[in-house]
Amino acid sequence: MDRAAYQAQYAQYAAMTERRLEELCDQYLPAQARISAAARYSLLGGGKRVRAVLALAGCALCGRPAAQALDFACAVEMLHCYSLIQDDLPCMDNDDFRRGRPSCHKQFDECTALLASDALLTAAFEVIAAAGLPAENRARAAAALAAGGGARGMILGQELDMRYETEKADEAALYTLHAHKTGALIRAAAALGCAAAGAGEALAQALDTYAAELGLVFQIVDDILDVTATTEQLGKPAGSDETNDKTTFITLYGLDGAEKLAQQHNDAALDALAPLGPQADFLREMARELLQRKN
Amino acid sequence: MDRAAYQAQYAQYAAMTERRLEELCDQYLPAQARISAAARYSLLGGGKRVRAVLALAGCALCGRPAAQALDFACAVEMLHCYSLIQDDLPCMDNDDFRRGRPSCHKQFDECTALLASDALLTAAFEVIAAAGLPAENRARAAAALAAGGGARGMILGQELDMRYETEKADEAALYTLHAHKTGALIRAAAALGCAAAGAGEALAQALDTYAAELGLVFQIVDDILDVTATTEQLGKPAGSDETNDKTTFITLYGLDGAEKLAQQHNDAALDALAPLGPQADFLREMARELLQRKN
Repeated sequence: MDRAAYQAQYAQYAAMTERRLEELCDQYLPAQARISAAARYSLLGGGKRVRAVLALAGCALCGRPAAQALDFACAVEMLHCYSLIQDDLPCMDNDDFRRGRPSCHKQFDECTALLASDALLTAAFEVIAAAGLPAENRARAAAALAAGGGARGMILGQELDMRYETEKADEAALYTLHAHKTGALIRAAAALGCAAAGAGEALAQALDTYAAELGLVFQIVDDILDVTATTEQLGKPAGSDETNDKTTFITLYGLDGAEKLAQQHNDAALDALAPLGPQADFLREMARELLQRKN
Repeated sequence: MDRAAYQAQYAQYAAMTERRLEELCDQYLPAQARISAAARYSLLGGGKRVRAVLALAGCALCGRPAAQALDFACAVEMLHCYSLIQDDLPCMDNDDFRRGRPSCHKQFDECTALLASDALLTAAFEVIAAAGLPAENRARAAAALAAGGGARGMILGQELDMRYETEKADEAALYTLHAHKTGALIRAAAALGCAAAGAGEALAQALDTYAAELGLVFQIVDDILDVTATTEQLGKPAGSDETNDKTTFITLYGLDGAEKLAQQHNDAALDALAPLGPQADFLREMARELLQRKN
């Protein structure tokens, strides 16, 4: 798969997600409520839709139409969005901006933002429960999303992130933090694709390993970009990790070391796909793109 | 069913819920995490378990063992607990106490309390997804809990509650507020009992009407107790509605009118159970007890 074909496919996956998210908002968020406006503001305000694309591509790799995973893909984006809204709250990172726009609690108010985030988290599970797939697939998807997004996954990652703002993280701690904060939900996205397709264990395991490695590449590149990219490229302040005295893959390994590490985890992601043949080319290209991204 | 038999049955339902909640915390909350300690602090800190008991009794009324609904009953208590933790947060009601103990964010901190509430909400759906029942029942339960606890149910109620702190509510607005803020989750509890039992539509409809009326009785009695009970009886400051200049069933109907209204909705709850024979006696007694409660 060449780069243009990959980009066209990615754009199609992202666009179908965007359209379906609109429909699901109409269906599950009450018209006129302030929480609905706030949820739409954050959910439909752009973003790369990496998690949705991974769920859709994962389903396609399992030999089923990508669209079969569309509602599950939307669910993981809803859950991701709830986490972003809460990340920005005063008691968390206290960020006034997100993707170059006022964050949800600045655009609305703190109470509305919190309720909107709750609504998105709950709607994620409602969308899964109502998807047009056999109940067994829906139950499997709900379990996967809750495991990745819950107290043993992303939420624990958030606790660790808060803890390591005051304590120093060593290498093992940094891996544990990112495996939970970012990795768990990316793995859940892959698992949702498998749940939609009813994938067997071997395929699900290969995709899970791929997703876990992809999550690490994503985070290492984030740390690299924080020191190499401009604020303009990032759409958020560059150099903020150093300003905040944060332990990152750069502080532990240096820029060269971090770049090598990202390459290693990219290789591991590709290794996991090795048995899967050319059908996995989209996911191979996706790993390369995330490795080489500039924002 | 006499009162002593009812109380013994209620105590048994509450106790089995309590035990199962302990087990589910062990299973779904990571040991040693601060969020887990906070979630346990709020979840296992007592409470009447009205919603769990309703789910269990609803399942029994449908002719299945109550224990078949136990995990669903625990899920609705988890979701209820998340809402209580968030209600107390500074950006919501800013309450320092809950059931005579420091509220979660006072005992821990705001960030931990928020993450613990997220963990409980997510775990509620994880528990449902993993329950030992056919996938069809689990998907039905997840849909019911999300509908009651989500943006068209309880969360909308919370938005309305916030709005009517500054705007005056009329009669219709007060009903809408309480139907969502309290009623929606009580109805979800009944629906969870039905989902566990695989109840048919007629039975589910009767229980839903019962639960909706029960929710109103519950709220009207809350308003009555705020003016008639002592702070000691309530475990929270009596007279707080007047202090906060809140529109309540008392301000709209007076004490006598509110008492008559509670009786009317209690009658409507019993009417819904009329076709169901002596098997519904527990739920009949439950309505009477909630009507006559003193705290």
